[in-house]
Amino acid sequence: MKRSLILCLFIVPALCIAQNQPDGNLVQFVNPLIGTHKMGHTYPGATVPFGMVQLSPETDTLLYDHQGKYNGPVYKYCAGYQYDDPTIVGFSHTHFSGTGHSDLGDFLIMPTEGALQLNPGTEAHPEKGYRSVFSHQNEVAEPGYYKVLLDDHQITAELTASNRVGFHQYTFPASDRSHIILDLISGIYNYEDKNVWTFVRVENDTLITGYRQTTGWARTRTVYFAMSFSKPFYQYGNMDYSKPQVYKGFWGKFDQRKNFPETAGRQIRMYFDFKTTAGEKVKIKFALSPVSTEGALQNMKAEVPHWDFERVKKEAQSLWNQALSKVTVNTEKRDDKINFYTAMYHTFLGPTTYMDVNGSYRGLDQLNHTAADFTNYTTFSLWDTYRALHPLFNILQPKRNADMVKSMLAHYEQSVHPMLPVWSHHANENWCMIGYHSVSVIADAAIKGNAGFDAQKALDACVTTARQKFYGGLDSYMAMGYVPDEKNASSVSMTLEYAYDDWCIAQLAKKLGRQEIHDEFMKRSANWKNVFDASIGYTRPRLANGSFRKEFDVLSTHGQGFIEGNAWNYSLYVPHDPDAMIRLMGGPKRFVTHLDSLFTMYLPDKFFAETEDITREGIIGNYVHGNEPAHHVAYLYNWAGQPWKTQERVRMILKKQYQASPDGLGGNDDCGQMSAWYIFSSLGFYPVAPGSDQYAIGSPAVQNATLKLENGNTLTIEARNQGDKNVYVQKVEVNGVVLKRLYLTHAEIMDGGKITFYMGAKPKK
Amino acid sequence: MKRSLILCLFIVPALCIAQNQPDGNLVQFVNPLIGTHKMGHTYPGATVPFGMVQLSPETDTLLYDHQGKYNGPVYKYCAGYQYDDPTIVGFSHTHFSGTGHSDLGDFLIMPTEGALQLNPGTEAHPEKGYRSVFSHQNEVAEPGYYKVLLDDHQITAELTASNRVGFHQYTFPASDRSHIILDLISGIYNYEDKNVWTFVRVENDTLITGYRQTTGWARTRTVYFAMSFSKPFYQYGNMDYSKPQVYKGFWGKFDQRKNFPETAGRQIRMYFDFKTTAGEKVKIKFALSPVSTEGALQNMKAEVPHWDFERVKKEAQSLWNQALSKVTVNTEKRDDKINFYTAMYHTFLGPTTYMDVNGSYRGLDQLNHTAADFTNYTTFSLWDTYRALHPLFNILQPKRNADMVKSMLAHYEQSVHPMLPVWSHHANENWCMIGYHSVSVIADAAIKGNAGFDAQKALDACVTTARQKFYGGLDSYMAMGYVPDEKNASSVSMTLEYAYDDWCIAQLAKKLGRQEIHDEFMKRSANWKNVFDASIGYTRPRLANGSFRKEFDVLSTHGQGFIEGNAWNYSLYVPHDPDAMIRLMGGPKRFVTHLDSLFTMYLPDKFFAETEDITREGIIGNYVHGNEPAHHVAYLYNWAGQPWKTQERVRMILKKQYQASPDGLGGNDDCGQMSAWYIFSSLGFYPVAPGSDQYAIGSPAVQNATLKLENGNTLTIEARNQGDKNVYVQKVEVNGVVLKRLYLTHAEIMDGGKITFYMGAKPKK
Repeated sequence: MKRSLILCLFIVPALCIAQNQPDGNLVQFVNPLIGTHKMGHTYPGATVPFGMVQLSPETDTLLYDHQGKYNGPVYKYCAGYQYDDPTIVGFSHTHFSGTGHSDLGDFLIMPTEGALQLNPGTEAHPEKGYRSVFSHQNEVAEPGYYKVLLDDHQITAELTASNRVGFHQYTFPASDRSHIILDLISGIYNYEDKNVWTFVRVENDTLITGYRQTTGWARTRTVYFAMSFSKPFYQYGNMDYSKPQVYKGFWGKFDQRKNFPETAGRQIRMYFDFKTTAGEKVKIKFALSPVSTEGALQNMKAEVPHWDFERVKKEAQSLWNQALSKVTVNTEKRDDKINFYTAMYHTFLGPTTYMDVNGSYRGLDQLNHTAADFTNYTTFSLWDTYRALHPLFNILQPKRNADMVKSMLAHYEQSVHPMLPVWSHHANENWCMIGYHSVSVIADAAIKGNAGFDAQKALDACVTTARQKFYGGLDSYMAMGYVPDEKNASSVSMTLEYAYDDWCIAQLAKKLGRQEIHDEFMKRSANWKNVFDASIGYTRPRLANGSFRKEFDVLSTHGQGFIEGNAWNYSLYVPHDPDAMIRLMGGPKRFVTHLDSLFTMYLPDKFFAETEDITREGIIGNYVHGNEPAHHVAYLYNWAGQPWKTQERVRMILKKQYQASPDGLGGNDDCGQMSAWYIFSSLGFYPVAPGSDQYAIGSPAVQNATLKLENGNTLTIEARNQGDKNVYVQKVEVNGVVLKRLYLTHAEIMDGGKITFYMGAKPKK
Repeated sequence: MKRSLILCLFIVPALCIAQNQPDGNLVQFVNPLIGTHKMGHTYPGATVPFGMVQLSPETDTLLYDHQGKYNGPVYKYCAGYQYDDPTIVGFSHTHFSGTGHSDLGDFLIMPTEGALQLNPGTEAHPEKGYRSVFSHQNEVAEPGYYKVLLDDHQITAELTASNRVGFHQYTFPASDRSHIILDLISGIYNYEDKNVWTFVRVENDTLITGYRQTTGWARTRTVYFAMSFSKPFYQYGNMDYSKPQVYKGFWGKFDQRKNFPETAGRQIRMYFDFKTTAGEKVKIKFALSPVSTEGALQNMKAEVPHWDFERVKKEAQSLWNQALSKVTVNTEKRDDKINFYTAMYHTFLGPTTYMDVNGSYRGLDQLNHTAADFTNYTTFSLWDTYRALHPLFNILQPKRNADMVKSMLAHYEQSVHPMLPVWSHHANENWCMIGYHSVSVIADAAIKGNAGFDAQKALDACVTTARQKFYGGLDSYMAMGYVPDEKNASSVSMTLEYAYDDWCIAQLAKKLGRQEIHDEFMKRSANWKNVFDASIGYTRPRLANGSFRKEFDVLSTHGQGFIEGNAWNYSLYVPHDPDAMIRLMGGPKRFVTHLDSLFTMYLPDKFFAETEDITREGIIGNYVHGNEPAHHVAYLYNWAGQPWKTQERVRMILKKQYQASPDGLGGNDDCGQMSAWYIFSSLGFYPVAPGSDQYAIGSPAVQNATLKLENGNTLTIEARNQGDKNVYVQKVEVNGVVLKRLYLTHAEIMDGGKITFYMGAKPKK
């Protein structure tokens, strides 16, 4: 529990009754610790909306486990922090939010007091290294601000950030042995040999510059930095933990380890020594750049030209209040409001800014480029985020979303294949997961009129991407209409997702009057039928010879042709044509039975054990909310004529899968996709098929909400007769006119006005 | 023997009598194979004067010896080629000329025919790899052109180059299995882990781009390339020989090893497959850049926008003829002319161009810079080249030398210490050897009026450099007047060289009217006396307590306070004040006895064995011409009143130490310093103390010489009555006026006119 909330709840409860204040201090409703326990993989540290810097504590990164055994690629520490850990290793500047794979964790800083220790120590023996025990009682996590007492050193650490600058403030005890450690080895996904190279210059007694190059999830990645101290260190040094460099040449002429202003190598830790008085604050500004140390310095000068920690914190929280106030909600319970704004917070963490203040950024071609007319973003977890995050941005962050598309198109231009991004971060394509869902993001933005980019060129990029024969069985898919089982272990998932993506391309082509492209891709969009085995009512791996694979388990998620899902869930993945799917599955009645079973059956333990990325709580029956393929599934009852079941399921998921506690997320937040689902569903609608302009009606969980749109319009959503049991929508009015369909259109939202949900305790059949 | 010479000598001998043609085809007198056997460490491949690309064959780099045992840092293969090796591994694009330490060897290309082999094989078993046996009978080495038949593949390889582009032409047999291998592992000084990272993009079926990052002699070095084929390959692939990358992620979606257009890793070899007809030529243009792949592409387009191999070769040889024709000499023997022009060739190989055609280059700070008003050069082997190479440039290449000084000043500006270069290459300071001889190069250029740079600023840089306490005992040197023995194993050499460098700074300060600086450094310049032990007549290691070290061997080069020299040689190193030195050594008579002994004594084998970098032939008595500290020594007789001994010693050294054969250099050419000594001495004078405007008179070896100076003047040197035995100068006239001193001034040379040496068989006492 964070201290600010304790204060708020028990000491000055009057302040908490802010539910009817439309703007005001919304950061108070965000708890960055939500999702930091177990599978959420969020981080609690300081950042600004879509900021380049994510300055956050590492509780471990487990290069070696506590027995000293190499632990390999690290899943648990994707965000560097696990709530139940007892120690903090330090504070690093880059973190993913909610991913299921890891990287980053660049430039770990730790303040210490006492004898200099340059190794991190272990959780079991923190006293053998620089890390420190800490307590959640002494921890504060707010948007743009993090604070903790490092017990072993009696140093209070405070963190805040601007877009490209992490700002540290360390309050030291009186000591002649105060240190700041800069660990250039530490990182997330920190296997042996991850570090490729580091280069550091001590420019003067308050300024350090350099870079760190790694090969991890991103194969070829370099981050540049400039680090400025508020107070001169009186001595400094470094240790190189890699194999001795072969050429030492005439290093013997002088000691390059102590007070020597340039160092480079594979495994370097540095220290800077201070003498401090009791309560003395030593501050650090740490700027990043994707391009150069010069860029980092410029970023620092432009964004934080002073040493006022409180000012930076205030500005960061002001940015957060601005972003959060795009939606003001009232909820029955405070926790729901915390869940809502924490979800808002999580959706606005990324994609992250990836360019210097002057527009320079490193491209996929490893060349430096300049973003002339857009903000360049990175970290596109597209297999997750095309579903609800980017659609949410088309409503709440349209300008940014158009720039994200421009960033994706720049990636395409720089790609040698060429392809739009699949899963990209920091000037790299990591090829993670399947599909080419950039096309969904592009089509969705264009269809919804949010095309500040060249749509014709974007369509060309989509088409080229979708025709790349080398990529994930696309050659077979194009030749045979499906990816054969022999070709890939995720052949069915691939076929289903390609078919949806192809439909997106067709929609964009239609809008742009490119009939041939439309026809080609509409045809491809029906390919999902090719992996549907009507004899059993499920999609199923199909062999190159046309027959379905014999051995097949509809509950297992491994080796059955799917990824992050079993046939029971994944067979429902035809978001662009649920009607046809329902027909193929035996019509609405049989379909509803299948859906019901999904939410109510008990998944045997052996299948849970193999389900990735989620806790037991992340599963409802056999419905796995913690993984994305079923995110649209609750809304499918609408197509089967039983929308009340959508309504009750959605409310159940909102209630069961999101808790206002560190372990409140049942699965990876996945760069905001889980949170975007929460926001849409809380507001009463959801984009089942991005690329269309329709949002399926669900059941709003808020009492009311006001959306302040970038086009100047305001949309009010009201749920009349709202209540914990009144989950059933009786009627929907758009500006007082009763809605005769089960979806809202994008225009109905963006035009502003009022949408009124009339709620009741019984299904409206 | 290279084929072109054989043709010349035996088939069309008439062409050889070109001795009286002042210009013409001077490249015929250059034999790039001189120095490629044993210790010369020159390379035989293709380059243009001061060119960025040195495209040359590797006969081995011996990462592992022939028993498969790791051989460690490689001395023998500093230039990648040893004349007595039977095989060629391939052709790489960067080579030092004559260094005593190694690096480079970037981007090795090898054409092969038959079954694809991606490992290089061994000298003993070339058939087990891609390397090939070759014969010198099928080898041609000329300035700007190299040709060899690769016996095992029956492929004729031809190489030429522009400044930044290597041009390969491979004539294949008829085959469906013709390959071009691009080995990104291979390199010189190729110990394990030298490769830091490589990144490659196959842009299309004729164009590859990428870079290679290494840590070797240069700690943090990246070279970018663009490689263009004259003919499309029909397939390609790569192998990664490093430990498997931990993240393979979704690489399983496709094969990244074959026909996949992007790869990156630590240890990569690539292949490109062709089908060739008999005699078909496959050409490659391979451009380098210190900045980016984009820069490399621009360099290629700017310098070689066509596929005409003969044109590039012709242009390269034309550049060489231009450069060589700065001096036209006539000699009695053809070999002397070959020695002379090969020496000219070696002096014009470097420092090498280190910027793109648009002026961009990587700086010491690892940032990209633009050279606005100069050509940026790299590879400053300053401990060697300040002695005669840069002084030679002040006569023959003043514009380039001023730009070299500008490059050194840019290095200083980018240095975090800050210091002028010590031994720098490719945006790195490798700190090799001792002293701060940049100051000599700067002072010499300024004193001689060749200061196209800001001399005041340059003086500030010199002073700052000379006051850097961290550097090689300078703190003690400044406090105590010498580097104590306890501080460094080369304490005496350091003290002697600092004293000379300090005198250079004083000269520059005097010229610029900076009296205080002049006085400070004149005082420092007498510090050599502090390590002179008058009781034995030698310089000697001195302890911090002021006493001389007891155990001391004047013949040994190890552990005696010297580097690349013993006390016998090094004690003579006071180039800026020989008179004072002679006095301290007991006066002229005793001094001459010492000098005579140096040239005539027999150095016991045990001392030879520990003498670095030279062959037994590289030693005359105890005089070690193959190492630099004694390069001025033969001229010191002038100061002792016995100039005729200078004359006979110089002629003896010219005769004994330089042969027109692959093993013709008795020691490392050291980036042209050995060759610069040859040119000066052949012309009859030598710069004993760069930083003064004086050249000590020696004994010219040429019959006559004409120097075409950049200022438009022409200087003619004539040696009347020249002959093998007429080594003694009877009289010197400058423009008909008899010279009454033992030196020429810089003005007497640069003003042009005529210097006449009257030679005779007997000393003129």
